[in-house]
Amino acid sequence: MAKQKNIYLDNGATTPVDPRVVKEMLPYFTKKYGNASSIHPVGDEAKETLEKSRAIIAKKINADPNEIIFTSGGTESDNLAIRGVAYAKKDKGNHIITSAIEHPAVMNACKQLSREGFEITAVPVDSEGIVHIEDIEKAITDKTILVSIMHVNNEIGTIQPIEQIGKLARKHGIYFHTDAVQSLCKVPINVKKQNIDLASFSAHKIYGPKGIGALYIRNGVNVQKQMIGGSQEFDKRSGTENISGIVGFAKAVSIYGDAENKRIAKLRDYLVAKITKEILNVKLNGHPKLRVCNNANISFKFVEGESMLLHLAMKGISVSTGSACSSRSLKPSYVLTAIGLPVTVSHGSLRMTLGRWTAKQDIDYFVKNLKEIVKMMRAISPLTRK
Amino acid sequence: MAKQKNIYLDNGATTPVDPRVVKEMLPYFTKKYGNASSIHPVGDEAKETLEKSRAIIAKKINADPNEIIFTSGGTESDNLAIRGVAYAKKDKGNHIITSAIEHPAVMNACKQLSREGFEITAVPVDSEGIVHIEDIEKAITDKTILVSIMHVNNEIGTIQPIEQIGKLARKHGIYFHTDAVQSLCKVPINVKKQNIDLASFSAHKIYGPKGIGALYIRNGVNVQKQMIGGSQEFDKRSGTENISGIVGFAKAVSIYGDAENKRIAKLRDYLVAKITKEILNVKLNGHPKLRVCNNANISFKFVEGESMLLHLAMKGISVSTGSACSSRSLKPSYVLTAIGLPVTVSHGSLRMTLGRWTAKQDIDYFVKNLKEIVKMMRAISPLTRK
Repeated sequence: MAKQKNIYLDNGATTPVDPRVVKEMLPYFTKKYGNASSIHPVGDEAKETLEKSRAIIAKKINADPNEIIFTSGGTESDNLAIRGVAYAKKDKGNHIITSAIEHPAVMNACKQLSREGFEITAVPVDSEGIVHIEDIEKAITDKTILVSIMHVNNEIGTIQPIEQIGKLARKHGIYFHTDAVQSLCKVPINVKKQNIDLASFSAHKIYGPKGIGALYIRNGVNVQKQMIGGSQEFDKRSGTENISGIVGFAKAVSIYGDAENKRIAKLRDYLVAKITKEILNVKLNGHPKLRVCNNANISFKFVEGESMLLHLAMKGISVSTGSACSSRSLKPSYVLTAIGLPVTVSHGSLRMTLGRWTAKQDIDYFVKNLKEIVKMMRAISPLTRK
Repeated sequence: MAKQKNIYLDNGATTPVDPRVVKEMLPYFTKKYGNASSIHPVGDEAKETLEKSRAIIAKKINADPNEIIFTSGGTESDNLAIRGVAYAKKDKGNHIITSAIEHPAVMNACKQLSREGFEITAVPVDSEGIVHIEDIEKAITDKTILVSIMHVNNEIGTIQPIEQIGKLARKHGIYFHTDAVQSLCKVPINVKKQNIDLASFSAHKIYGPKGIGALYIRNGVNVQKQMIGGSQEFDKRSGTENISGIVGFAKAVSIYGDAENKRIAKLRDYLVAKITKEILNVKLNGHPKLRVCNNANISFKFVEGESMLLHLAMKGISVSTGSACSSRSLKPSYVLTAIGLPVTVSHGSLRMTLGRWTAKQDIDYFVKNLKEIVKMMRAISPLTRK
């Protein structure tokens, strides 16, 4: 029997760790194992590595090193940003503006705050998944303390106009947070130019390890600590620093080059063109241009996404129907609902997210199988008979 | 020049990762890299590994697998336990009982709660660092919702009577949480027998990786989620699961044997006897018997701890003055203050925590150097001239 293929087109859920990242991390398990808070040479070595790694992440987004707080990942970063600002600024106001297509870490943190008396406005997106600056402007009140709009959407890959949103928020003296988990290294981030006050990052979406992320907090922005204990991370996040993870995160950032994004975008465009040409009744969700390089989200009429997933899996192909975070639920994607897709169509949608090791022949193999699966499923679908 | 020695006697701060643990983790970076929430074979593989690892940790403490929630470490576990219970039970009462010698993750989480209107009682410890059950019983009111007493103290290694505390709390219908970060694998934990409702654990104290821990939450105990987002970890802790860390944690637990604790205790007793015999004016802090196997905390009169640390470091020896979390501060240890040590004495205290790779010759080398350093320091100390 031939070796089972593994065509991984779910890099938006998580990525394999780059072997260069693993190599960089290894000494920090067994040899350079110090606790960065210990005041002896083993601890000092860890502390030095911590600060070098911080500087690498800071440089990538044009921040100062002391504006980077390491966390356990994107969810913790989003929570620290949103709840941290909410509790710190509650005397000033209780209103937060966000969008209808945010990651659950932002959306559900906001829901919790609304149970505690905060007011949340979720601005809509247009049919291409873009937030309109006027909608944010209209939503601002004298109680607004925070605007949280993601940089790149995790399901449909749309890039939001964060620079203008940042400018607007700054003008009104409101903090601006962006969940940049899907954009780091893929779309330019310059916190100063883009007027960002807080930004969330995660390593495992960019070929770094799981369990490590960061929150950029602009100097002068006050957040109430969420993880309470020792005085690590400038007293903004307690807990022994995950040095091997931090080293891996920094390495992942430092080896990520722009050429890769161009290659992936080209391959993604090839994928979309091929599907659109070879399969009937399909629709690309999201914006055709304002879109992260590696994302394709396509609806296939008259078929059911979960079944497509299973058939593709049998061919060794991994894609997803939406975000990984909610993929074990059967509810229609709230992101696809927000861009106006009827439930029947959103249920037949696939997210393909390409990565560092995706090759042209992988795409060819994928589309060949997808075409057969869609054809077969449509032939037996009650929806096509209607 | 001879190779610099590395005598690491700070295993209470953190431990090197066991090479067997690293080996177990490695495939989960580059090959088995799935997101456990993804519904395709790459994700399923991660999910399966997650559940196997959970079962290993659960078995170690006689819990059910679904009572184990993976977190980013001890601090997060303590925060989820204490703040999670406080917010979930606030309609029942607002009073929490803890001790004067808890880890900062417990102590400072309680301080934050007291700023929010909760009442905190910190029961004292005796001169040997043991909490008295009567003090807890006296502190209970009809508003008490939680008792949080650590299993093993991180500075002086004392083992608290958690089984009796658990029994008392259960009798009064109050939840009992124990910070078991320093005790896991070193002191038996049986959550059923010991009447524990919540217990915090960390991997990097037992030769596992940093950035991963767990909270045991007894079935039926309600905690308010602190990390909010997706529905991972039975909807009790959001965020993509750190599979490589979780695998490493489980491996660290599974390879830890009781024989090791006996060897280390014997070596620690040898260390204490040797110091007591060879150096004058010393005092072992904590309890002589109710003490974790690897901890020795000793006060050296007429010398200053930080200076001892520096001189020892020059000889390639790593020890600490207190916990790593507060070692960059110059305040006297609150733990040593709680057992009644005057500031002058607590400032001259060292914590030595032995580990898996500590050998008898390391102890001999350490004591030989320590003896010389103490002698030299006492000769120039203004304190000895008084």
